[in-house]
Amino acid sequence: MVKIVKFGMAGYGVVGKALVQALKAKKKLVADEHGLEFSLVSVYEFDGMLHSEKGLDLARVAAAQNIRALPEWQPGKLARDEIERQSYDVYVDMTPTNIKDGEPAITHFRKALSSGKNVVTSNKGPLMLSFDEVMSMAAKNGKRIGYEATVGSAIPVIHVAKSGLNGNPVTRIEAILNGTSNYILYRMATEWMDFDVALKEAQERGYAETDPTLDIGGHDAAGKLVILANTAMGLKKTIHDVKTEGIEHVTLDAITMADKEGFVIKSLGTADEKGNLEVRPKLVPKNSPMGAAITGSLNAYRFVTELARDITIIGRGAGGMEAAAAVLTDMIEISKT
Amino acid sequence: MVKIVKFGMAGYGVVGKALVQALKAKKKLVADEHGLEFSLVSVYEFDGMLHSEKGLDLARVAAAQNIRALPEWQPGKLARDEIERQSYDVYVDMTPTNIKDGEPAITHFRKALSSGKNVVTSNKGPLMLSFDEVMSMAAKNGKRIGYEATVGSAIPVIHVAKSGLNGNPVTRIEAILNGTSNYILYRMATEWMDFDVALKEAQERGYAETDPTLDIGGHDAAGKLVILANTAMGLKKTIHDVKTEGIEHVTLDAITMADKEGFVIKSLGTADEKGNLEVRPKLVPKNSPMGAAITGSLNAYRFVTELARDITIIGRGAGGMEAAAAVLTDMIEISKT
Repeated sequence: MVKIVKFGMAGYGVVGKALVQALKAKKKLVADEHGLEFSLVSVYEFDGMLHSEKGLDLARVAAAQNIRALPEWQPGKLARDEIERQSYDVYVDMTPTNIKDGEPAITHFRKALSSGKNVVTSNKGPLMLSFDEVMSMAAKNGKRIGYEATVGSAIPVIHVAKSGLNGNPVTRIEAILNGTSNYILYRMATEWMDFDVALKEAQERGYAETDPTLDIGGHDAAGKLVILANTAMGLKKTIHDVKTEGIEHVTLDAITMADKEGFVIKSLGTADEKGNLEVRPKLVPKNSPMGAAITGSLNAYRFVTELARDITIIGRGAGGMEAAAAVLTDMIEISKT
Repeated sequence: MVKIVKFGMAGYGVVGKALVQALKAKKKLVADEHGLEFSLVSVYEFDGMLHSEKGLDLARVAAAQNIRALPEWQPGKLARDEIERQSYDVYVDMTPTNIKDGEPAITHFRKALSSGKNVVTSNKGPLMLSFDEVMSMAAKNGKRIGYEATVGSAIPVIHVAKSGLNGNPVTRIEAILNGTSNYILYRMATEWMDFDVALKEAQERGYAETDPTLDIGGHDAAGKLVILANTAMGLKKTIHDVKTEGIEHVTLDAITMADKEGFVIKSLGTADEKGNLEVRPKLVPKNSPMGAAITGSLNAYRFVTELARDITIIGRGAGGMEAAAAVLTDMIEISKT
């Protein structure tokens, strides 16, 4: 006996497409191991929705060059108007993160929660700007928010922070949260490149956006740090509470000097014992879990706990399929209970 | 409103004592954040039990030099006879691991499960020898088994394997599972000590037992690997299925040669794509998450997943309070639902 779980999703970019692929590939596993079948009812884009009350065919959606050419496409029907009146069990937001005001995702969250839907998100905006409001709204409506994908993609840091350390309080967090910054610093240190050269290479290889400000300026990391620290340490911070310094001014000279003394320079996000949050370049001993082993675009998360000292988790914090895997994990977790 | 959870525990050694300390220290946190109050009804030792139907006073138990001198001590009352007739919600086993036949813990598990109690354990014996039987028994009785403490202590690897990667199958595991072996190899590589000297030092500093066979022979690691691989990959292995080779024959020469080529030698447990399990010394690149950063007695666990490549978790895999923290996490998880 499988339980049918109806869901709608907004954002059909890299993550949205990967989620459809993942659902298609893992349909049998999800049914056999978790007793669930996810029925995709709506896919929202900025200019309309793909919709079928009895569930869209995942293979047909995945194969479409442009979902707007499918017969189920309804132009002009937008998530902000539609979510409330639909009967999803879960609403999944994979729209791009808006660091300014969190829109349109925050409106989507409000409408989904107030109309009795659970929410799963890969979009960080609403949680980095309004964590407390969003969580209170979910609690008031007796609904849940899955947000593993917002921090470290499929690295299960939110899962660990929420329940993996029950009864063992987290007193401090240190984390390498942005793969682009880590890639640039790593290439500078291993190839003795200047910052500008490493940035150009990162852009050519697809590790950095054309406008890399959010990544190298530390803002992406700051947003993730807020979400993680609020979750693990019970804080109510926003991105405006984070002292943020980017890696733009890290010189090859500084990296060379650090290297001679046995250190690497990493862009480190820190939540300290008093709940102060900051992101800035710091010296880290090479032979430590947050050191030289965090190569390329890897992320790393170190939790210092009261009862069991420190626990470090390392993995790939970006990538469409990685984010989709985290979304799927949350969809399963939320739908099982 | 707190929910009272009655529990009995067997084994009042390093872990048992740490659990009583942890429960005392985290009483308010457990009530405020999880709505639970744990009432310790019985403490079993090999020669009797400490028992109070209305709950033992944790401070008095913790302060006692010898629990046998307390008025609640009942000599000759043993866990194997008592567990069934008691009305615990949770039975916690912290007796020493018996690698031969899993006793007396496996009898305790059977009696607890068949009389309607959930089980939490730091004892690996029953799960490395009879994983499938124990899990089936729990399922048949509608009860749960918490065993985070059996692998990596408070490093939440079981938690991650069970639900942190829902829908994202684990295809391969590599792990540094035994702190003693890692400490010895680490000291050999950093101080250029011979094996015998490093072992002696480990014993003097309390990292190795007087009889270090289980640790350096790889058997402790093999037992943990079985439990982890069964959990993450849905296998039904026992410790007898693991090809095991210890670190006794790793020479300083081999370590020196490896070092020159950019490698360290680590005792690595591996579960491969076909479900083959082995523990043996292997070359690992220094600058990789399982490499030189896994210093001293640290443990490290690397999960290779289908959708999100690899995720590595590092921490302290031993220590009384670390194990107690894992037991407490499980007690909370099991009691909340």
